[in-house]
Amino acid sequence: MIRTEIGYTTIDKITVREKDLAKELLGQVDFVDMMMLAILGRMPDEREKKMINLILVTACDHGLTPSAMSARLTYLGAPEAMQAAVAAGLLGAGSVFLGTTQNAAELLINAARDLKDEDGDDAFVACARETIRHAREKKQPIYGVGHPIHIHGDPRIPTLAAVSRDNGCFGKHWRLMYAIERVFRDEMSKNLPMNAVGAIGSIIGDMGLDPLLARGFMLVGRAAGLIGHLYEERQNPIGQQLWDLVLEQDPRNEIPGKRRGAE
Amino acid sequence: MIRTEIGYTTIDKITVREKDLAKELLGQVDFVDMMMLAILGRMPDEREKKMINLILVTACDHGLTPSAMSARLTYLGAPEAMQAAVAAGLLGAGSVFLGTTQNAAELLINAARDLKDEDGDDAFVACARETIRHAREKKQPIYGVGHPIHIHGDPRIPTLAAVSRDNGCFGKHWRLMYAIERVFRDEMSKNLPMNAVGAIGSIIGDMGLDPLLARGFMLVGRAAGLIGHLYEERQNPIGQQLWDLVLEQDPRNEIPGKRRGAE
Amino acid sequence: MIRTEIGYTTIDKITVREKDLAKELLGQVDFVDMMMLAILGRMPDEREKKMINLILVTACDHGLTPSAMSARLTYLGAPEAMQAAVAAGLLGAGSVFLGTTQNAAELLINAARDLKDEDGDDAFVACARETIRHAREKKQPIYGVGHPIHIHGDPRIPTLAAVSRDNGCFGKHWRLMYAIERVFRDEMSKNLPMNAVGAIGSIIGDMGLDPLLARGFMLVGRAAGLIGHLYEERQNPIGQQLWDLVLEQDPRNEIPGKRRGAE
Amino acid sequence: MIRTEIGYTTIDKITVREKDLAKELLGQVDFVDMMMLAILGRMPDEREKKMINLILVTACDHGLTPSAMSARLTYLGAPEAMQAAVAAGLLGAGSVFLGTTQNAAELLINAARDLKDEDGDDAFVACARETIRHAREKKQPIYGVGHPIHIHGDPRIPTLAAVSRDNGCFGKHWRLMYAIERVFRDEMSKNLPMNAVGAIGSIIGDMGLDPLLARGFMLVGRAAGLIGHLYEERQNPIGQQLWDLVLEQDPRNEIPGKRRGAE
Repeated sequence: MIRTEIGYTTIDKITVREKDLAKELLGQVDFVDMMMLAILGRMPDEREKKMINLILVTACDHGLTPSAMSARLTYLGAPEAMQAAVAAGLLGAGSVFLGTTQNAAELLINAARDLKDEDGDDAFVACARETIRHAREKKQPIYGVGHPIHIHGDPRIPTLAAVSRDNGCFGKHWRLMYAIERVFRDEMSKNLPMNAVGAIGSIIGDMGLDPLLARGFMLVGRAAGLIGHLYEERQNPIGQQLWDLVLEQDPRNEIPGKRRGAE
Repeated sequence: MIRTEIGYTTIDKITVREKDLAKELLGQVDFVDMMMLAILGRMPDEREKKMINLILVTACDHGLTPSAMSARLTYLGAPEAMQAAVAAGLLGAGSVFLGTTQNAAELLINAARDLKDEDGDDAFVACARETIRHAREKKQPIYGVGHPIHIHGDPRIPTLAAVSRDNGCFGKHWRLMYAIERVFRDEMSKNLPMNAVGAIGSIIGDMGLDPLLARGFMLVGRAAGLIGHLYEERQNPIGQQLWDLVLEQDPRNEIPGKRRGAE
Repeated sequence: MIRTEIGYTTIDKITVREKDLAKELLGQVDFVDMMMLAILGRMPDEREKKMINLILVTACDHGLTPSAMSARLTYLGAPEAMQAAVAAGLLGAGSVFLGTTQNAAELLINAARDLKDEDGDDAFVACARETIRHAREKKQPIYGVGHPIHIHGDPRIPTLAAVSRDNGCFGKHWRLMYAIERVFRDEMSKNLPMNAVGAIGSIIGDMGLDPLLARGFMLVGRAAGLIGHLYEERQNPIGQQLWDLVLEQDPRNEIPGKRRGAE
Repeated sequence: MIRTEIGYTTIDKITVREKDLAKELLGQVDFVDMMMLAILGRMPDEREKKMINLILVTACDHGLTPSAMSARLTYLGAPEAMQAAVAAGLLGAGSVFLGTTQNAAELLINAARDLKDEDGDDAFVACARETIRHAREKKQPIYGVGHPIHIHGDPRIPTLAAVSRDNGCFGKHWRLMYAIERVFRDEMSKNLPMNAVGAIGSIIGDMGLDPLLARGFMLVGRAAGLIGHLYEERQNPIGQQLWDLVLEQDPRNEIPGKRRGAE
């Protein structure tokens, strides 16, 4: 039968996960409760909720990223359809940005399968070594390390690790991720410190969630940041300037003046 | 100068709205705080936060909507790119579904411009009458009324109104929306009760927010619901069945068996 | 009944518009024939085909437009999902770029309703005057005139007009568009020469096609151009440089070096 | 330097691949010429053009596919933004539908690397055997075989093969694809006849084109088919019925009547 367990609708009631939306959810649960109810079919506990908020806040925004730029350039052409601009901003959440959290979580969960919480650091370092070796052999990337700007280390990592510890969510995936960083540094002389993608992959692993949700949470969090960009874009547009700036890089182009207009 | 007020990045720090992401935000604010900080440049107060959560919970999900169906049909073809499925699910948030909240908010804000909080019900009914008349004349729709399933009234409205009242957010836009419902019923014998779109338009108006944000919040909330659908789709796929079901409606099509496969 | 007139499938045959895809279409008709067959249910005649090709060639590409930039920035994050990058590039085809052709066609078709082919230039100028006046009054834009770069006139117009004439497709919509340009110049001292959007709106009107197809053809043509950009992007990537270029505009950002990497 | 080789714009001229768009392209080349010029930087010869048209016609449409359904469901919510509906229809062109042509081309090009045109059928069968064995071992799919509806063989294949032969485009990739079909049938007793994806992968290989273009051409061709669906949807809408049909599958839902309306 074609049906979803998420919900259904009758003339007098909307039911989500067997709860009455109007009488049991609206005004009584917050957004993160509702999202997790929709996804997992149960409310998150306090610690899970802290962690989900942590992930969403990390994903939300940090300035003019490629996703914000795509969204603004799309809004420039279709201001009447903000949903298209948000969609354009999300579409790059693949194996290189944002969506990478899913790849990192998959990598860590697969690699840490045989590790146990009580294992010593040596076991983690050995596993990290093997994980790197295996990826090299298959010509696959190691996700979650290195950053083009934060070359001395991603400033988000200490906080992400501390909040994870405080909420009982610092387990074997976090430890493996740290061990990977260490093997790169100590044994291969590579400055590839863990980045936020690696931290979020670790959190997803240590929360026991599916890697698909890593990408999913990034999309939800980033959608919020994109609303911020588009709201600013309407009030203080820079989309046209972005275009002109790029055209100016190629001296063959001529731009007589700065005006909004047709292609 | 091309810049955003939302944030910027240095080697050692990410700054969002002049706050240090790692030291002042991560682990200390929740997602709704962060979203509103990105959008408005300030944290929401407790009542605003209640209202934003209320809107996001309303938007999140209620079963197999067109957006959930588009997302699942897209996932069927590209399971490796969940962001594309989420984007497909959001792209229909236009003037008929979800995005309609923006249209409703615009309508109410324009129409209520000259109303005052202290005005009596008569003034609201007169304004409602004029709003309907004007829309008819211009052949424009009245947004926010009527529902194809909830024909006796949208079950969400009493809760949305009560929570709005409790949080100081039941003002002239809510009152005008109710007056529009009344004029349709009492003076035009039309059963067009207010729907959730009308309620959210009213809330946006009474919170003093920009109508664009009505659409924006729907996109963020619905993104969360779509993650729920896609997570279920991977575990219990119905996308292929949806396709077969539709093909079966036209007896000219032949479907020899139910198997996943190529176009 | 839920069905499409476009086509259906049996175990041994695919039927499109009552033709056997394998035996009557593949290898025998070209893409423009097939597209028009799918859309209109009949093959185009030679002159229509010339005109459709003309529109698609116009739409295809001309360098680093906002749509090409969005597509490349999306590809940067998700190179494994080229369809997402193409979609991102198309999503800005709204009321300001590309999709504007639909708005222009609607404007011209509505405005020219009462004009006749045999009417003299005076009638067209009067109609143009009235069209501009009416748009001003309603605070609506006049689509199809002005260009931020081609300030002396859009270089495509003479060819688009000549090909239209050669193919019996220069009628009252083209004439009204030219009259609008003239009224702006001669009576209002505004240098707003017709642009390609105005020309394509005119062609759609003079071909007797639906304005929706104006937007549709732009999407098909631009999709082809975007494939060109993404193919180049893979071989000679500039997406990361686009991002760095934009970050550099705000001196608060620090970019230690140019490397591909994480957000 | 940030620039594209595809084109640039001056006040009086638009240049695409060093040709003057207005004087050398518009009205003189058709869409397929222009697309290939944008992509490859040169015009296609007659045989290439035949093949490109063949691919685009194959991709265009065949009834209510998941991409047509997503597009129509999106249009239902946002009829004012047709570009969003087309984008939604393209977003599923991934590793399962449409985009699979890229995967098939990659598979064939990699596998056929050491085959020569003069090799006998035995060499092709041996290579096919090895290709299947290797994919099994790596748990990777073999793209381009099997079809859920065309269980006796995809009716498009004979024509696609014949046109390829007629245009000098039936080489080692086509032969390997046929050999894979044969090994499945004769040695593994599996009825997995080649499908259109396998044929297009073969054509791309035998034309010496990049696999990315296989996916690209499918997107362009399908965009045209989607215009047909959306044009029909506006005149004869079935989107709302699709939604109702799906809701009816779950008896917990109530649908009092068939009316267009709010979520």
